[in-house]
Amino acid sequence: MDFNKLDRQVDFILEIDKAKQILRNTILIDASRKENDAEHSWHMAVAAMALVEYADSKSLDMLKVFKMILLHDVVEIDAGDVFAYGNVDWQAKAEKERKAAERIFGLLPENQAKEFMSIWNEYENCETEESRFAQAMDSFMPILHNYKTKGLQWQRLGVTSDKVLLKNRRIEKGSKVLWEYIQKIVKDAVEKGYLKA
Amino acid sequence: MDFNKLDRQVDFILEIDKAKQILRNTILIDASRKENDAEHSWHMAVAAMALVEYADSKSLDMLKVFKMILLHDVVEIDAGDVFAYGNVDWQAKAEKERKAAERIFGLLPENQAKEFMSIWNEYENCETEESRFAQAMDSFMPILHNYKTKGLQWQRLGVTSDKVLLKNRRIEKGSKVLWEYIQKIVKDAVEKGYLKA
Repeated sequence: MDFNKLDRQVDFILEIDKAKQILRNTILIDASRKENDAEHSWHMAVAAMALVEYADSKSLDMLKVFKMILLHDVVEIDAGDVFAYGNVDWQAKAEKERKAAERIFGLLPENQAKEFMSIWNEYENCETEESRFAQAMDSFMPILHNYKTKGLQWQRLGVTSDKVLLKNRRIEKGSKVLWEYIQKIVKDAVEKGYLKA
Repeated sequence: MDFNKLDRQVDFILEIDKAKQILRNTILIDASRKENDAEHSWHMAVAAMALVEYADSKSLDMLKVFKMILLHDVVEIDAGDVFAYGNVDWQAKAEKERKAAERIFGLLPENQAKEFMSIWNEYENCETEESRFAQAMDSFMPILHNYKTKGLQWQRLGVTSDKVLLKNRRIEKGSKVLWEYIQKIVKDAVEKGYLKA
């Protein structure tokens, strides 16, 4: 049997192992260390599964949501993780990530590369119900981690409550309920001194 | 708004963060360290997405496959990772894992706990096409890692080629193509001296 096609797919699988080394600014719930992109993507996928009833749309294609979540951060292998509250050149970031997507998904056979690229683009464009819910989960997770670690990273990085609410408004576009929950958490975090007002 | 139900779901999400600390016997492709259950589950899910065309069944419910993969190792938070080639009491292991599933999925609201438990059970029982393909991927990944790291963990742990072929035969039940590929890899690993015959 000829394994040329499978070999290309395996090359892709091997390449994305690097996502396990891309550290984020979020720390684990026990505050022992930073989490990486692979862990984050898994956690976010299970959380989406547990919280899908709160998506505004009641007819989500959950298979699509999973695919977007599983692939959304693979581009950071080349482009790196960006500090959400930092002084970022968002256009340059988008360009870097697009190139990364082309290189990494381009390892796959052509049709599959197109399919994976299209899923990643749908997530990035955030125009479908599925991508809105997936992006809501992407913002939901680090706030939860920060809250449960008493704002350790918020304090280290000098984040304030108005920044958290401004930067994470996209949650509201995917789930009004989760956005209400996050607003409650942020208010509570300020009251408890985890987060500066 | 009353967040009692959401609070329980969040408790579950926080609890499974611990999967990021459960180390496996597999090492990363760059051989720098062991991988953990969260990383493995993510990698396995993306690999399943990339390789689904090789599943024997041409009508797989991929949503079910993802759910099983995402949840399959959560029980190791309580039960720990077991050395696949070790002298293991498999019945005791199954019992430990069942208890772990009850505790961890039991953190969720009742109906959801039942749903998650049922997905996990389907994976464990390995009687459906979806669970056979998911379990095939679970065996496929560590062999790939071992092969690409020149058998480092096989050698450290004293694994031989007959053990690899015997222990991973379940791959054949989900995908004859992937099983053929793995047999080729194992043969090559022996020839290259990565793995003892």
